[in-house]
Amino acid sequence: MKLATLRDDQRNRQRDGRLVVVSADARRCIDASPVAPTLLDALERWSVVEPALHDLARTVNAPAAQGAMPFDVRQCLAPLPRTWQWLDGSAFLNHGHLMERAFKVPPVADFETIPLMYQGAADDFLGPHDDVALPSEADQIDFEGEFGVVLSETPLGVAAEEALQHVRLIVLINDWSLRAFGPREAKSGFGFVQAKPSTAFAPIAVTPDELGAAWTGGRVHLRLQTQRNGEWFGHPHGGAMHFDFGQLIAHAARTRRLSAGTLIGSGTVSNADVAVGSSCIAERRMVEALADGAPHTPFLRFGERVRMVALDGQDQPAPFGVIDQMVVPCGAAGPERMSIENATD
Amino acid sequence: MKLATLRDDQRNRQRDGRLVVVSADARRCIDASPVAPTLLDALERWSVVEPALHDLARTVNAPAAQGAMPFDVRQCLAPLPRTWQWLDGSAFLNHGHLMERAFKVPPVADFETIPLMYQGAADDFLGPHDDVALPSEADQIDFEGEFGVVLSETPLGVAAEEALQHVRLIVLINDWSLRAFGPREAKSGFGFVQAKPSTAFAPIAVTPDELGAAWTGGRVHLRLQTQRNGEWFGHPHGGAMHFDFGQLIAHAARTRRLSAGTLIGSGTVSNADVAVGSSCIAERRMVEALADGAPHTPFLRFGERVRMVALDGQDQPAPFGVIDQMVVPCGAAGPERMSIENATD
Repeated sequence: MKLATLRDDQRNRQRDGRLVVVSADARRCIDASPVAPTLLDALERWSVVEPALHDLARTVNAPAAQGAMPFDVRQCLAPLPRTWQWLDGSAFLNHGHLMERAFKVPPVADFETIPLMYQGAADDFLGPHDDVALPSEADQIDFEGEFGVVLSETPLGVAAEEALQHVRLIVLINDWSLRAFGPREAKSGFGFVQAKPSTAFAPIAVTPDELGAAWTGGRVHLRLQTQRNGEWFGHPHGGAMHFDFGQLIAHAARTRRLSAGTLIGSGTVSNADVAVGSSCIAERRMVEALADGAPHTPFLRFGERVRMVALDGQDQPAPFGVIDQMVVPCGAAGPERMSIENATD
Repeated sequence: MKLATLRDDQRNRQRDGRLVVVSADARRCIDASPVAPTLLDALERWSVVEPALHDLARTVNAPAAQGAMPFDVRQCLAPLPRTWQWLDGSAFLNHGHLMERAFKVPPVADFETIPLMYQGAADDFLGPHDDVALPSEADQIDFEGEFGVVLSETPLGVAAEEALQHVRLIVLINDWSLRAFGPREAKSGFGFVQAKPSTAFAPIAVTPDELGAAWTGGRVHLRLQTQRNGEWFGHPHGGAMHFDFGQLIAHAARTRRLSAGTLIGSGTVSNADVAVGSSCIAERRMVEALADGAPHTPFLRFGERVRMVALDGQDQPAPFGVIDQMVVPCGAAGPERMSIENATD
């Protein structure tokens, strides 16, 4: 099943949008709000609403597609426009090793046995084509391509082997990052706040069955291809996760239960083979510094575009769709990023 | 104005409860759900609902108190049972210095000019009398008494001087902590996840005017008194914050806008004068270690109780009410902590 969230201008829907079920070919969708007004609501009572959502999937995939409408990714918010918790792991050790060197921080003890994980802002996610409005190019604007899972309610103390049962949806993420803040925040020990502005998502969240064999062993076995201004930047493979999502979920739930809608990220997809490129600029810069003595790829400037898509073994796009955004200075983003507090009903 | 959230067993209210306005003497309350079903909803459209909430405050404070009911703190959830973002500062430098020594981590650069801040779990807050269900005494169970502010929508880049305009409510917090995880998580650079289980709150969230002169300069000028099993543990003064809440909010909003309902914490209330005691065990242990060569106050065991209350200059309780909880092993908490995913309507 493929789910997305469309922009909706009604006041009480501006933040959470309207849930739709998307057709297999992603050309049509059907309003799911009579079943569950929002994806977060659906996740909170998944076992109750799932059959009705499957009925809608059958309808939208039937030749008549009664009640369907064209699926316009330009109208998409993030599939989950906001949620209660966003915990991002760092499960690709190659990325972790390079970032330790980039940030000049000491190696972390138990790096290979205990996942690294920070908590990000879940209150304000970006849709796949939203402008990325940031205060300053001097903050060293960077992207991070990742996969993520969205959970049903998950009990405190869940074992890694059982944790994957709570995965309801898989998503494709651009975890926008500001590298100028990273080293200081890492050294403070308190984790990333200013280094992590709003995170962006591909338009379609998929149930695990949609990925077929590409969802195996708690890992997403797809390549994550990034383009910067239309030029190839990298296509590392998601199967190289050192910790699988079950281990990441168990780590997150060790001392707290996780509410329905909790999002767990893989961390930047990264492979040891430098020929496959990178999913973030900081990594490439570190590779350059190690090879050439100094980095030469610059961080992003306003006006640059970043495009991400997941590809299968036959170079076919996976069902998440595409993230394609432009970085702009604050104040230049579209009207949908304006304050809504004083909007009327 | 004094606001609280009562437990409500209707399925769609189990997580968020029912908003009430509390009388000045905290003996009565009145249902505010016709105005705004939840506090989070009220915060999202504060300018629209505030006049109606004030009308309810006048009603509940009138001698007839038409429509009012007794205010039973045992029925209280956290005032905001869950929200989109919980960012906790560390604005009392005395606490920060002692914790650096306790965790054996190096001093943070710019400690006195840039606030420390980690992001906590906002998906599952505890009410003032909820049991605190934790997996193991070996995790070094500790409390942290703090003040916090709840915001209206706050723009990216807000200046510290303007940030206080976005403070809608002030709350009293017990930021439960597991010290066994703290040093490793601090050294990882990714911040606190396992070290921070669910956070607890006093029953009443107050608008700033309720505190009178005790809310000045973006600080809460009240003593935070903690008792452990009925015995005095400390009463440090909230006015000693090095960074005020305006500076903490500006720090949080430097690269992201903050949604309505964002909670910003002061960090553990702490004074340099050891005679006033501490708001957490880890601090007292460090004071003991410095004075006596070794700590002798143990961390909490299951069955112990922790009580927190804010007191004014005349030793009178401030309007937040009391947090009074028992620490219990997982599985022993009350039924309200059970899963609700499969609850029926």
